[in-house]
Amino acid sequence: MEDAVNYRIERDTMGEIQVESDKYWGAQTQRSLENFKIGEDRFNREFIRAFGILKKASALANFELDKLSETKRDLIAKACDEIIEGKLDHQFPLVVWQTGSGTQSNMNFNEVIANRAIELSGGVIGEDKTIHPNDDVNKSQSSNDTFPTAMHIAAVEQIEKTLLPSLSKIIETFQNKITEFDGIVKIGRTHLMDATPLTLSQEFSGYLTQLKNAKKWIELSLEYLRELALGGTAVGTGLNTHPQYAELVAKKITEISGHSFMSAENKFESLAAHDAIVGTSGALKRLACSVLKIVNDIRFLASGPRCGLGELNLPANEPGSSIMPGKVNPTQCEALSMVCVQVMGNDAAISFAGSQGNFELNVYKPLMIHNLLHSIRLLADGLNSFNTNCAVGITANRENIDKHLNSSLMLVTALNQHIGYDNAAKVAKNAFEKGLTLKESIVELNLMKEEEFDKLVVPKDMTHP
Amino acid sequence: MEDAVNYRIERDTMGEIQVESDKYWGAQTQRSLENFKIGEDRFNREFIRAFGILKKASALANFELDKLSETKRDLIAKACDEIIEGKLDHQFPLVVWQTGSGTQSNMNFNEVIANRAIELSGGVIGEDKTIHPNDDVNKSQSSNDTFPTAMHIAAVEQIEKTLLPSLSKIIETFQNKITEFDGIVKIGRTHLMDATPLTLSQEFSGYLTQLKNAKKWIELSLEYLRELALGGTAVGTGLNTHPQYAELVAKKITEISGHSFMSAENKFESLAAHDAIVGTSGALKRLACSVLKIVNDIRFLASGPRCGLGELNLPANEPGSSIMPGKVNPTQCEALSMVCVQVMGNDAAISFAGSQGNFELNVYKPLMIHNLLHSIRLLADGLNSFNTNCAVGITANRENIDKHLNSSLMLVTALNQHIGYDNAAKVAKNAFEKGLTLKESIVELNLMKEEEFDKLVVPKDMTHP
Amino acid sequence: MEDAVNYRIERDTMGEIQVESDKYWGAQTQRSLENFKIGEDRFNREFIRAFGILKKASALANFELDKLSETKRDLIAKACDEIIEGKLDHQFPLVVWQTGSGTQSNMNFNEVIANRAIELSGGVIGEDKTIHPNDDVNKSQSSNDTFPTAMHIAAVEQIEKTLLPSLSKIIETFQNKITEFDGIVKIGRTHLMDATPLTLSQEFSGYLTQLKNAKKWIELSLEYLRELALGGTAVGTGLNTHPQYAELVAKKITEISGHSFMSAENKFESLAAHDAIVGTSGALKRLACSVLKIVNDIRFLASGPRCGLGELNLPANEPGSSIMPGKVNPTQCEALSMVCVQVMGNDAAISFAGSQGNFELNVYKPLMIHNLLHSIRLLADGLNSFNTNCAVGITANRENIDKHLNSSLMLVTALNQHIGYDNAAKVAKNAFEKGLTLKESIVELNLMKEEEFDKLVVPKDMTHP
Amino acid sequence: MEDAVNYRIERDTMGEIQVESDKYWGAQTQRSLENFKIGEDRFNREFIRAFGILKKASALANFELDKLSETKRDLIAKACDEIIEGKLDHQFPLVVWQTGSGTQSNMNFNEVIANRAIELSGGVIGEDKTIHPNDDVNKSQSSNDTFPTAMHIAAVEQIEKTLLPSLSKIIETFQNKITEFDGIVKIGRTHLMDATPLTLSQEFSGYLTQLKNAKKWIELSLEYLRELALGGTAVGTGLNTHPQYAELVAKKITEISGHSFMSAENKFESLAAHDAIVGTSGALKRLACSVLKIVNDIRFLASGPRCGLGELNLPANEPGSSIMPGKVNPTQCEALSMVCVQVMGNDAAISFAGSQGNFELNVYKPLMIHNLLHSIRLLADGLNSFNTNCAVGITANRENIDKHLNSSLMLVTALNQHIGYDNAAKVAKNAFEKGLTLKESIVELNLMKEEEFDKLVVPKDMTHP
Repeated sequence: MEDAVNYRIERDTMGEIQVESDKYWGAQTQRSLENFKIGEDRFNREFIRAFGILKKASALANFELDKLSETKRDLIAKACDEIIEGKLDHQFPLVVWQTGSGTQSNMNFNEVIANRAIELSGGVIGEDKTIHPNDDVNKSQSSNDTFPTAMHIAAVEQIEKTLLPSLSKIIETFQNKITEFDGIVKIGRTHLMDATPLTLSQEFSGYLTQLKNAKKWIELSLEYLRELALGGTAVGTGLNTHPQYAELVAKKITEISGHSFMSAENKFESLAAHDAIVGTSGALKRLACSVLKIVNDIRFLASGPRCGLGELNLPANEPGSSIMPGKVNPTQCEALSMVCVQVMGNDAAISFAGSQGNFELNVYKPLMIHNLLHSIRLLADGLNSFNTNCAVGITANRENIDKHLNSSLMLVTALNQHIGYDNAAKVAKNAFEKGLTLKESIVELNLMKEEEFDKLVVPKDMTHP
Repeated sequence: MEDAVNYRIERDTMGEIQVESDKYWGAQTQRSLENFKIGEDRFNREFIRAFGILKKASALANFELDKLSETKRDLIAKACDEIIEGKLDHQFPLVVWQTGSGTQSNMNFNEVIANRAIELSGGVIGEDKTIHPNDDVNKSQSSNDTFPTAMHIAAVEQIEKTLLPSLSKIIETFQNKITEFDGIVKIGRTHLMDATPLTLSQEFSGYLTQLKNAKKWIELSLEYLRELALGGTAVGTGLNTHPQYAELVAKKITEISGHSFMSAENKFESLAAHDAIVGTSGALKRLACSVLKIVNDIRFLASGPRCGLGELNLPANEPGSSIMPGKVNPTQCEALSMVCVQVMGNDAAISFAGSQGNFELNVYKPLMIHNLLHSIRLLADGLNSFNTNCAVGITANRENIDKHLNSSLMLVTALNQHIGYDNAAKVAKNAFEKGLTLKESIVELNLMKEEEFDKLVVPKDMTHP
Repeated sequence: MEDAVNYRIERDTMGEIQVESDKYWGAQTQRSLENFKIGEDRFNREFIRAFGILKKASALANFELDKLSETKRDLIAKACDEIIEGKLDHQFPLVVWQTGSGTQSNMNFNEVIANRAIELSGGVIGEDKTIHPNDDVNKSQSSNDTFPTAMHIAAVEQIEKTLLPSLSKIIETFQNKITEFDGIVKIGRTHLMDATPLTLSQEFSGYLTQLKNAKKWIELSLEYLRELALGGTAVGTGLNTHPQYAELVAKKITEISGHSFMSAENKFESLAAHDAIVGTSGALKRLACSVLKIVNDIRFLASGPRCGLGELNLPANEPGSSIMPGKVNPTQCEALSMVCVQVMGNDAAISFAGSQGNFELNVYKPLMIHNLLHSIRLLADGLNSFNTNCAVGITANRENIDKHLNSSLMLVTALNQHIGYDNAAKVAKNAFEKGLTLKESIVELNLMKEEEFDKLVVPKDMTHP
Repeated sequence: MEDAVNYRIERDTMGEIQVESDKYWGAQTQRSLENFKIGEDRFNREFIRAFGILKKASALANFELDKLSETKRDLIAKACDEIIEGKLDHQFPLVVWQTGSGTQSNMNFNEVIANRAIELSGGVIGEDKTIHPNDDVNKSQSSNDTFPTAMHIAAVEQIEKTLLPSLSKIIETFQNKITEFDGIVKIGRTHLMDATPLTLSQEFSGYLTQLKNAKKWIELSLEYLRELALGGTAVGTGLNTHPQYAELVAKKITEISGHSFMSAENKFESLAAHDAIVGTSGALKRLACSVLKIVNDIRFLASGPRCGLGELNLPANEPGSSIMPGKVNPTQCEALSMVCVQVMGNDAAISFAGSQGNFELNVYKPLMIHNLLHSIRLLADGLNSFNTNCAVGITANRENIDKHLNSSLMLVTALNQHIGYDNAAKVAKNAFEKGLTLKESIVELNLMKEEEFDKLVVPKDMTHP
């Protein structure tokens, strides 16, 4: 037999509604719970934390500007601290698929903070109304400026705390591989076909450059995210705020979060458009494109063990097949490629949504931040997982590398400057058709002597200008 | 103080590993848990259920084909029944971002079923190995054919159980609105500009047609999903299966699930490509496009209450603003538009992934089914929520509709056949410039008499050929 | 010195404007030319032809319904015939990036037909106005219903005339390859790693199935395109048309074009949404996903010649490199993959546009049809090019195929049922680590005798249940 | 009767082939023409020019590094000048859908330049081979590094010459509108519903900020495009180049083009990945999202004239309907929104392609640059067209703006701080239900006196903190 659930009555401007007694939320949260039974996607820890930071910063600012009493400030700040620390996560049950302004989530925070503050002050939730969700907790704010502010705080925090460090780690690993693979000359492949040689270090240096550039592009995009909407209230004008509020609250948010933020120059843009989110998502998509190229290369270079290219060895982490015994697969590459493709899908959703603002508001806010935080999380985790379980353990299969290098016909390119492109082509074709080595072919065609060939065709010398 | 966690030792071909004692899963699941710490996306109830159905059907088929003992069949089937019913959902902890074939999820099912079956038979998990995850539970199967089979089962079930009924409901609601709005003549709008009139029923009949067509297109797409990969095993050849297995197991799956399935004609395609998933996702995207158009119309037509179009009234479900008192917003429209945009993003990911198969396998399976089931769920829930909380309660605002209709200059179009396009244009322009009614303008220009105008310009008569 | 250009004066409801004397178009076309200097994308031959068919059909129908004189019908029909035959293509200079309803293109057709008809009747263009662009040529029509009608006519014609035949050809080629490759056993690859064997015919049968299914899905999508908007006029009500016009004109279009069409049941949907276009584009995208998988496989299987997989030989059509002599590349595969990716991009644009209708009109019509016809053209041409210049000439490289097959460790899978999955894994791992053949390994591990192994591990027997 | 076409014989490493006598191109171009009959998309003027610049710069650099004679340098440079100036555009007939490295287009340039140089030197094309397409014109180069170099040159040039100036112009226009609209207080709209007021200048300042940010983001993205691949040759190693070539040729390109470029630090990345293109396309997509929001707002605010919002007046450029006389539509907004959606589709194609590099080469080069230049062109032209034909002429409709402002219930928000959120909500609801003004309602509810209301509710005062 289940325990009987107890309820209390909560009220908003639409009337009364029942809420479970052990929940801090109020009438508007409860209405949203009942009106939006759509899927199971909820906002993540980072986002809840961001809202906690914002509400605390706002209380501090309002107090400094003489809009809130010291007692209220302290109670609200205390409740916010619990939210920031993750103690109240279960009090935010609303799904992403709600009002497009995130109004109900903003009210969820207002209601939980108000009731928890009342409780902290010794009051009875549902009866005492000493801290009002709208008039006190939401003072100087609107969903329309709080929600986008929380979007920016969460995105910057999550990128700076997880994605950038992840990228630094994989960049370091690739840097190490470049050192480790120094001097290993291998065949290049263009159009998937045998081409002129390069070193394995050079091949990995391309990956390294991709990742460094992608990282820098993401960092640049953060500048737009550091601008906060808060202070714009309902439509961007700052109605019902103190003239110094916007600047002050951005300063408080910077202090509480430890990440750098500033008040947005133009609040109309901040509410009605989310181009900063679109921009950062585009930067993540660029990273996804880079990573997809890299992991595809790695899994193809490691293909085999006997019927593929087999130039790289990847760590074997788990049995690869439920039917084929002894099979080992490039599973970390696969997981990370799926991540990249998901990031591209998320970017498609974010961009579409970003274009759909109307007048003073874009009502795709919850979708946009949900997808952005999803992309950041997946990339950060995926890169970490790939780094630890795969990249650091990659080794070169010298035997296969040498075998391919020595059999390639494209070494003939070194002779362009000596016998001309047309003759060089003849040598390669003759070798291909008759199954000869290049040297055998060039000698057969009387275009060069053996010794001369040996002097001119030195794979290692072909790896630089 | 927390309870001490107890562990047992599990083994696979890579060696030993610790597993928490109260978990049924084995070594391979445990390895995956540790190797793929990427995000929090997990497979949903429908997918777990689908795998349960598949494993049970396979045991039944193997028994009938003399490949499995009656005892093993019964034990496996019993464990599967628990999975089907949802009793073991917490035993499937793996994330979506794993091996691209879903091998580890397949092994998770094999291991849980084996251990639960051992337990049911009175054995000791981790010690008794009377039911082998690979040799018994996975008999006649490979991850490469089970996972895509589960994908199809889950997709068909979820569409037939939730999305199609959702669509039927909203279609019925719109059918009712057409009846309800019969005879309400209103201004049409093309390019957002005033155009010739139509009835509100006609406007809604366009929505109805969109939804009916989208529904039919989704239904047609199901035909491809009914084809099952099972019986193809590792690469599509059916190695290690009985010649009658593929057909038989499809029959069993049909029986157990109550949904219609058949064995795929070509198993190579079923493993290496997931065009059926791409096709159905495309059909969902088409629905999303339709729905986005409809809900955008509805929220614009309901805009106001005093500074918008205001031709429709939507139910007021919750306070609309944390700062603007008394505001009511088209929140169900917004939630549903976000759903539509997410479905489009999901489709982008699914299509990309669908194109990336290599040789005998596409290794984006988990991503593909995760996104497809996500889209189905969101559309089904979103349409239901919109239907219940908004569509059924839509009413016409006759006052505004009439005001717009009567002031429109485009009623002049009715006169094309009488005074010619060029003269009609003169009438409209003259009215616009001088702020006249059409009748005043036409009389002023001496193109027609008042009575004649009244006879020829009858909005209701303009709503049909 | 260039010839002096002569001009005449044309008029519309906005006033006078200069038009070059040798152009048939009138004032509205000229205005559009001057107002929309955006890029160079113009409508293709198929679309111009479609509009010609539509305008002719409309004149015939209007005559039959007593709305147009026999003389006018004949003159208009004659001018239309010239358009249908492609004689006046240079008279349609407008770009895609114009009014979203295509109004100016519709007027371009009305004006050119009117002036050409006047000329045919012996009149002086610009002076005689015996055939009026709006009152005669556009009779019973609006841009809002003609443009989407032309969209459907052009799409159906181009698909039926070019894409479906292209698909039939490549399907036939693959069917031939299946016969040709009969009995060639090769290694399978899953996760890019060596897997159990299949025949080359089986591998190609997967491609064949993909193409057949994709073709069928495109054909099914045509059903929606066969429905024509014509008869809906400005907003879908059919204002200013005869009650029998819609049905009759669809019949005429069917007769003139030789492709099957019918009048759309609901004209409101036909003007305000273009879900049929979205649906067909989705079907083309599905084909693109299929084709991308196939050509990627083919170019990887043909990679080499000495450092790749080298199991297929592709025709060498042109020198592959400006610097590497003798290089031959899978260029047809590459061109076709680019086509596929473009089709996906086009689909993204089409879907977005399809969702953006408002009220009685979707104003993304020109973009939608431009992208759809682009996708059809590229796929039809690309498949033809690939078929002729590559697919028909693909041959198997038996030497490499055999080498790979015989060295693969995954043949061990055949022993699962004899020695169990765990033992089989030991055999494979032992062989891998020591560089042994499977047979050597199994004997070394005392799990089976040589003769027994030879009897049980027969690659050809592993290619069926 | 047509003129007989004359042919000459050209040769490459594959043998002989006929070329029309009046064409400069050679065997490889001709083969490509015949092998790739796919659509009609060709490279634009900017791209042809870029290749001309590159080839000239390369000849100059090779001469300075003692790799090319002065005579050859001069002849090649002269031929290149003709290409740069646009005199030989018809000599580049190849379509986009060719080899993925653009090898054939590179050879097209090599062949045309060689033959034109031979002609300039008085030689006979097809017979004299004094200037060799590969050995001379392509010296120190490969398709693999020239094509991506031309991509970057063309993209930077086109962005700096057309798109950025276009953006500056529209930014200036919006800046002017902000001045022009100063002090016009209007109703704000959030969720499409009446909200608190702002000024029309503030509304436009949001647009301005969007455009400025988008412009800056595009400019930042150019930094990656300024890095040139040239000097990497076949696989990035710089084989067959002088050690100083890469730096020197980048300097020459900068001088000739007048745009700033440098040699890429890592050439492996430059050939195998095109993340810079993906990045810039992402920045264009961000701009497209911004612009779509803006033009949607403008056309909705201008909707009417009598049944819409009607707060803005747009210039009337052309008759808006072929059936509705006197109709005027927001056609420039529509054309520009189509442009934006196309840019999003192009970005989807570019991103997909950007992720598909393999090993030392990405073979989606032609698709990527074709789409990028298309997007740049459309945005530059589209913004110009919109600016000239619409934006500069936008005026405020004061009558409608005032009417809406004064009737709005959301002015009640100003009272939150005086009577509390809950009471304010009562006032608004009471007014809505009874059709009262706010003042009437508040007095009826005894919450405030008329004079007090008049003092506190002043729309203009609500437009700032």
